Amino acid sequence: MKYFEDIAVGDRMDIGSHLFGADEIKLFAAQFDPQPFHMDEAAAAQSHFGALCASGWHTASMWMRLRILYGQREDAERTARGEPNATLGPSPGFRELKWLKPVYAGDTISYASEVADKRLSQSRPRWGLIQVHNTGTNQNGELVLSFKSSAFVERRSEAASPTATDSVRRAD
Amino acid sequence: MKYFEDIAVGDRMDIGSHLFGADEIKLFAAQFDPQPFHMDEAAAAQSHFGALCASGWHTASMWMRLRILYGQREDAERTARGEPNATLGPSPGFRELKWLKPVYAGDTISYASEVADKRLSQSRPRWGLIQVHNTGTNQNGELVLSFKSSAFVERRSEAASPTATDSVRRAD
Repeated sequence: MKYFEDIAVGDRMDIGSHLFGADEIKLFAAQFDPQPFHMDEAAAAQSHFGALCASGWHTASMWMRLRILYGQREDAERTARGEPNATLGPSPGFRELKWLKPVYAGDTISYASEVADKRLSQSRPRWGLIQVHNTGTNQNGELVLSFKSSAFVERRSEAASPTATDSVRRAD
Repeated sequence: MKYFEDIAVGDRMDIGSHLFGADEIKLFAAQFDPQPFHMDEAAAAQSHFGALCASGWHTASMWMRLRILYGQREDAERTARGEPNATLGPSPGFRELKWLKPVYAGDTISYASEVADKRLSQSRPRWGLIQVHNTGTNQNGELVLSFKSSAFVERRSEAASPTATDSVRRAD
């Protein structure tokens, strides 16, 4: 992870894409969202979706996978350059999750995360808090998933010392 | 599903509970949230969580599973009594999802959903919109998961006719 000081509002990460196959859609649904239109092509054809489509929790969980793998690749590249990696803290949750269009079997979803806000944490001086807008877009350029997340990100130790000054506003 | 007219603000559904085992925690994490504290006991012991714990997406997806199975049981019981079932429409999404405490291997989470608001849909006269507050609570009574959802629910056909009157306020 980049340090808090190295993250700017507007930074965009293209974290990866995934082709949702029929088999994995059905497998996820059987475990976590056993509705006919996620489990069976014929039943889905009769539903308001019109064809087999992925559980919204599946498309959101795939964002998590790609976000973690993206971070691991970035960390490995920084390590290879001899640069330190910041720690990403726990996520307090997310907001305004919207499933805007169905994700059908065979769709490829490209996920991106854009930094919408950053602020220092008053309760945790070694950490900053970033707000991120996360999206999933299908192969036709249609937005299918949108949600906002927050995350604590480690500050550079020198920046977190009491003598450091910066212009980022303080919160919580 | 109950018809919109038969749902009251304050109605609570205890939709079921689930014991999160270490193996399933690791299996979900390997697919969707490959972070050390979700995949390996020793790494988790060294992390800020202190022990193996489930991905937040896993605990949220399990809510979905139990909610669907609860609805299927309720529908089957209504059918057995000779009563009709309303259709549950698509979910526009979720709001304010909070992972309030870790869910550790061996924890049993009990999920509940409580109706927080209901209103008629102006754009879709055959449907009402309900707002639901969903929670997960561990075996110690601690809230671990909280989020708010919306869902379109079918109205009784006679209630949705233009001559019907009721006191529910209209929205959208």
